[in-house]
Amino acid sequence: MTRYPADQLNEWLVTLFEENGAARNVAETTARILVEGDLLGHHTHGVKLANGYLNDLKAGHACGDPQRLVIEQSSPVAALFDGNYLLGPYLVQRALDHCREAAKGYGIGIVSLKRSHHIACLASYLAPLVEENLVPIIMTSDPAVASVAPFGGTERVYTPNPLAIGIPGREQPILIDVSMSTVTNGSVNKARAAGQKLDHPAILTAQGTVSDDPEDFFPGGSILPLGGMEFGHKGFALGLMVEALTSALSGFGRKDVPTGWGASVMVMVIDPARFGGTDAFLDETDHLARRCFNAGQIDPQQPVRLPGQSGLRRRADYLRDGIPLPEDVVADLQKAISDSSLRGSVSLG
Amino acid sequence: MTRYPADQLNEWLVTLFEENGAARNVAETTARILVEGDLLGHHTHGVKLANGYLNDLKAGHACGDPQRLVIEQSSPVAALFDGNYLLGPYLVQRALDHCREAAKGYGIGIVSLKRSHHIACLASYLAPLVEENLVPIIMTSDPAVASVAPFGGTERVYTPNPLAIGIPGREQPILIDVSMSTVTNGSVNKARAAGQKLDHPAILTAQGTVSDDPEDFFPGGSILPLGGMEFGHKGFALGLMVEALTSALSGFGRKDVPTGWGASVMVMVIDPARFGGTDAFLDETDHLARRCFNAGQIDPQQPVRLPGQSGLRRRADYLRDGIPLPEDVVADLQKAISDSSLRGSVSLG
Repeated sequence: MTRYPADQLNEWLVTLFEENGAARNVAETTARILVEGDLLGHHTHGVKLANGYLNDLKAGHACGDPQRLVIEQSSPVAALFDGNYLLGPYLVQRALDHCREAAKGYGIGIVSLKRSHHIACLASYLAPLVEENLVPIIMTSDPAVASVAPFGGTERVYTPNPLAIGIPGREQPILIDVSMSTVTNGSVNKARAAGQKLDHPAILTAQGTVSDDPEDFFPGGSILPLGGMEFGHKGFALGLMVEALTSALSGFGRKDVPTGWGASVMVMVIDPARFGGTDAFLDETDHLARRCFNAGQIDPQQPVRLPGQSGLRRRADYLRDGIPLPEDVVADLQKAISDSSLRGSVSLG
Repeated sequence: MTRYPADQLNEWLVTLFEENGAARNVAETTARILVEGDLLGHHTHGVKLANGYLNDLKAGHACGDPQRLVIEQSSPVAALFDGNYLLGPYLVQRALDHCREAAKGYGIGIVSLKRSHHIACLASYLAPLVEENLVPIIMTSDPAVASVAPFGGTERVYTPNPLAIGIPGREQPILIDVSMSTVTNGSVNKARAAGQKLDHPAILTAQGTVSDDPEDFFPGGSILPLGGMEFGHKGFALGLMVEALTSALSGFGRKDVPTGWGASVMVMVIDPARFGGTDAFLDETDHLARRCFNAGQIDPQQPVRLPGQSGLRRRADYLRDGIPLPEDVVADLQKAISDSSLRGSVSLG
């Protein structure tokens, strides 16, 4: 499998986004966040997304002009961003920068972001803040899409609604990025494209039975909430929490019946220095991490891992040796390149 | 089954807590929150807890003196409370009051609370803030207790770590209170005391197999994270999030090896008026609620319910007709009354 240097991928994406109307800083942030997704191993939410973003830029469904962002600051710590469908990675990074300053001054900062375009992989945003010993939190829903059914129901109402949080630690920082559903839309599409079953039953058929066949999602099935048929009331509750803190808080959501690819987002940063202190926070994370590592193993071949641990190890490997992009990602990237000024000069081999 | 008027239970509890050294306002808040737990139907986390609280007051492991609370305000919106093991409901209510003022002025308020005594049922705190169209969020862990194993591990490391959030709505407010594990310590104890199995397999035996027998918890088993054997990496991640935002943020946690019954808590209040606006928030909640109610039914006998919906209905019923306390709760309350000045004048019949 060919490996692609992260720098090279980044450079190509910047060119592609700029050619399609994105300002330099919007293009750079979006390229960096997409490549970061692949570095962490989340290939469904990395460079593969560029094609869709570029198509939406071309069609006017996504915006590359940073002047279109409108910021309503309601206090030194709270703001509402109207993203006007600017590329999501740029908007989320701006919101994080905003929250970071507020957190350093006041302990916490929060931005509610409405009418963003898609925001890619949530885990991609965490590391720089965690390295500053801050706690970033991101939640998102897409009010234009429905794929998860409420617990007990059979029809799609809301999205997988991921929540990400970065937890600083000296020995092992923890990077969490989990959806409130059993699986994501991306996983279902990936399994379907590969003609494979899902690893576990995560689909509720239109008839209300459980299935591991991604095909059952498409004629009117749905994704089960986290907790499945037994404890799905908890995943449903957490999904509603994300809906409330993203769409309802921003004032723009499903009631507005948006149709384009987009996102409602909540971004928050907390500075432990303003609470029990940074050192005590790091000591507690390290202590808890060690206890988890020493908590036995169900499978002797699979030691306990902390969220983000294998992603960060993979990231170090991929930065050194290049990223082994899956075939479907290469094909999508090739297509984007073929439609650009890079065709001829760039071949993905 | 005898029904007990909420007012009467409340009055008894105030007397009991005051007799055991709690100041009037501490006794009143604690009594109100415990009775509220039973009103919502959470009998494992209501009046039943009074006995334990009283025993800890007697033994000096819980404190009833509000002067012992130390507040370190680090900004207009952020504070660290050192609870000195004051009764938890009093501390959480103080933290909520504190956050409420901050949220009204700044959009958000956050209190990190360390060294609290047990804080009872998280759902009990939500309704008054939700009625003001605010969004309260509470998370808690008990750094002195371990009952849940990390995903892939077999030994207990952390607690069920509940998260509660109140979501205002005009037609149907949503009150969420869910642990990040499949079941709570209370559910395991309740099933064991009744000699029953759990409703679903939620125990990981010491040998790493799954069981629905609460007896398997006690010789060295653990509670499975939300998501179980298939998707438990998500529940584990969410459990770590709660650990970080409670113990690590407060600076006091498992690294400090506390032994008494206690809690690390994060309390937050958000005011939608400072973001997309209260009306838009309520409209979105109502819209989403209606979509959930109209999303079909897996079981024709069980319509989709929103979190808190049956609790609020039960509450109205119990306020009107009295609370049908389970036998074990009556027995525990009887015991507390027998040890007090109320003996002789009060009989639970």
